[in-house]
Amino acid sequence: MPHIVIIGGGFGGLSAAKRLRREDVQVTLVDRKNHHVFQPLLYQVATATLSPGDIAAPIRWILRRVRNVRVLMAEARRIDVNARRVELADGGALDYDYLIVASGSRHAYFGHGEWEADAPGLKTLEDAIAIRRRILVAFERAERETDAARQRALLTFALVGGGPTGVELAGTLAEIARQTLRDEFRSIDTSRARVVLIEGGPSILATFPEPLRLAAKRSLEKLGVEVREHTVVTAVDAHGVTCANGERLDAGTVVWAAGVAASPLASTLGVPTDRAGRVIVEPDLSIPGHPEVFVVGDAAAFLHQGGTPLPGVAQTAMQGATHAAGNVMRLIRKQPTVPFVYKNIGNMAIVGRNSAVADLPWARLSGLIGWLSWLFLHIVMLIGFRNRVVVLFEWAMAYVTFQRGARLITGETEGLRAQASGPGAGSGPRPDH
Amino acid sequence: MPHIVIIGGGFGGLSAAKRLRREDVQVTLVDRKNHHVFQPLLYQVATATLSPGDIAAPIRWILRRVRNVRVLMAEARRIDVNARRVELADGGALDYDYLIVASGSRHAYFGHGEWEADAPGLKTLEDAIAIRRRILVAFERAERETDAARQRALLTFALVGGGPTGVELAGTLAEIARQTLRDEFRSIDTSRARVVLIEGGPSILATFPEPLRLAAKRSLEKLGVEVREHTVVTAVDAHGVTCANGERLDAGTVVWAAGVAASPLASTLGVPTDRAGRVIVEPDLSIPGHPEVFVVGDAAAFLHQGGTPLPGVAQTAMQGATHAAGNVMRLIRKQPTVPFVYKNIGNMAIVGRNSAVADLPWARLSGLIGWLSWLFLHIVMLIGFRNRVVVLFEWAMAYVTFQRGARLITGETEGLRAQASGPGAGSGPRPDH
Repeated sequence: MPHIVIIGGGFGGLSAAKRLRREDVQVTLVDRKNHHVFQPLLYQVATATLSPGDIAAPIRWILRRVRNVRVLMAEARRIDVNARRVELADGGALDYDYLIVASGSRHAYFGHGEWEADAPGLKTLEDAIAIRRRILVAFERAERETDAARQRALLTFALVGGGPTGVELAGTLAEIARQTLRDEFRSIDTSRARVVLIEGGPSILATFPEPLRLAAKRSLEKLGVEVREHTVVTAVDAHGVTCANGERLDAGTVVWAAGVAASPLASTLGVPTDRAGRVIVEPDLSIPGHPEVFVVGDAAAFLHQGGTPLPGVAQTAMQGATHAAGNVMRLIRKQPTVPFVYKNIGNMAIVGRNSAVADLPWARLSGLIGWLSWLFLHIVMLIGFRNRVVVLFEWAMAYVTFQRGARLITGETEGLRAQASGPGAGSGPRPDH
Repeated sequence: MPHIVIIGGGFGGLSAAKRLRREDVQVTLVDRKNHHVFQPLLYQVATATLSPGDIAAPIRWILRRVRNVRVLMAEARRIDVNARRVELADGGALDYDYLIVASGSRHAYFGHGEWEADAPGLKTLEDAIAIRRRILVAFERAERETDAARQRALLTFALVGGGPTGVELAGTLAEIARQTLRDEFRSIDTSRARVVLIEGGPSILATFPEPLRLAAKRSLEKLGVEVREHTVVTAVDAHGVTCANGERLDAGTVVWAAGVAASPLASTLGVPTDRAGRVIVEPDLSIPGHPEVFVVGDAAAFLHQGGTPLPGVAQTAMQGATHAAGNVMRLIRKQPTVPFVYKNIGNMAIVGRNSAVADLPWARLSGLIGWLSWLFLHIVMLIGFRNRVVVLFEWAMAYVTFQRGARLITGETEGLRAQASGPGAGSGPRPDH
């Protein structure tokens, strides 16, 4: 029986596995994590609204009834296309007859990998928990800071990159500072926190049509977000960011949402990639010279539909993976493969309370209607009844009470230790009530 | 205005702060964490039923309307009772007029601190997440293990200590192996996993009356748990435990629930402690020679009611802290302090699906009735409407579907890397379907 290996348990990998469920093949799905993450809601974990468990589900559980799929929690390190073998980080290996690579992307720093320590990106649950910790610790440190300039910097949040992730983080952070944390601190006024969204290009949400871009910008500014367009960040350090125009922004928290690159695994295929490390695939999604290897989603650059890569969204991965799995079955049946055609079903970004922009094939929505469609679509797409109910409840609670369900600082609180280095930080004989 | 410092944001610290809410005093509550944890449900985080956010709430949020309380996230390192000063780990300090120490306990290894790495205990959210990771990784590793003996060891879970925590973990783990994970693995039969509960004393749940102890034991055995009483563990290593009777138990996962000791902070008070490091307090809960310093909850040994320390439960901390705060107010008003009297309102432990034991002053409950009272009381005691609703929903889901809402392996998955050391682990040309 042919053995098909799928690398990645994201939207792409799961779609491929499901497409193959009734076929007479053996499938092995490999992922570094035991869980699938619903990435469109990651920013809600980073901003303490949802718990990690609310937007994730064990891959084994999702595929428990797909009897021809075996799930392995392991890290694919290298692909040997000549030996038809996937090498695993733990020393094991998987031989395949057909391979579907859906290994996704990581954030990219355009040659400045050293910025990552000071400006983490948001791609995994671990990233989200780390960003949540930084944001919450910044407020805790500001409460104890006696130096006004340092306190101001701690209450400044710089978000680099004006795509959907940056916009979503900015809107939520502004609401947290102005509403959620109100009344809880004694030394600081959290509503005076600055949330600065920095976009290098001419506009935030560049992939959206102009009326929606402007609507989003207005919504953000109404929430108190400072939107800086045409502003390229040239340096990031532990105390803030420096921009190309010479402006210096002292910020205790910097989050990177400015770019992604394909996961390093894609480069081990030994075929041409684009600048972001994405494998340039054939029209049928296979790689040059190896018709049995397919690459889909964020790991692929599909340039046969207008010359620019497809958007890095769930739909691209899902449609591509289903198509690639179909082509694998055609190869098995000795039929010619067919070219992939991406069908754009729309593009959405949430901007904040009551406001989102949705660019759909049949309509452009913004404001409350955009927001309601966003809510509806994301609840429907979430995997698992339990997650849908809990997410809906958490949203309702956050909406009505402004409270956030997961304001936990877990793990190492380096932030609080680091504080000791600042003179006068939190010392003094008695708190000032 | 007198300044009262409270150390700890657990059940004790919060009760003290609430008792002082209408008094004309300044209060500072210090905790290492930003959140209060509802410890009675920690085992449900460790067994992947609840998310950390479901049983925790930010201390600031809980006390947001108590205007005379200031909350500081900081680690109290040392108490200088002569200078009336609490020294913080970050170099800061807090001067006090009155001090209430409610710093709780950590798990203790009876002089074998080196066992901690292989047998983690369960006291914090971080502990719970780490134990959850170990349990879930053990099943993942077993699925890929080709050596039968090692696979058997990976599917063996040893719980050291037959108190409520050990009993609760054992019952839940047995249910997860037999019900939750069924159908999800292809190489292993999870229902053959062994859950071994090891108690050094003559009986599990030693603080409960005999009929309830026996009922609990029967319930556990019905769930498939192996209960070993009179079995002292003499060694713990990375591959399992060794018992005093010479028996060796190869277990991939060992959890320590056998003992606790007061947090190290208590010892810096410079007054006599018992063997578990608990401060031996005066009848009014103050410490000898310093009537302005009170110690409550797990950090205290109160020997004036029968000579044995009070049980290490939430009620002890809450009653003691409220009493200590009352005594602080008496001192401020130049009145004599009054001795503490602990009122036992009962003792409960959940044993598994449909079964719990409850030793109440007016009744002894077991089985389904015990279980329903346990559910009811724990929901009522949880802090925050949101947490109550989510926990109730998660329980209902787990009860009806046997699914668990938080089966996430997050953080470093050392487990999977370590696997590489075992020959043949997961390698081989093709998975065996």
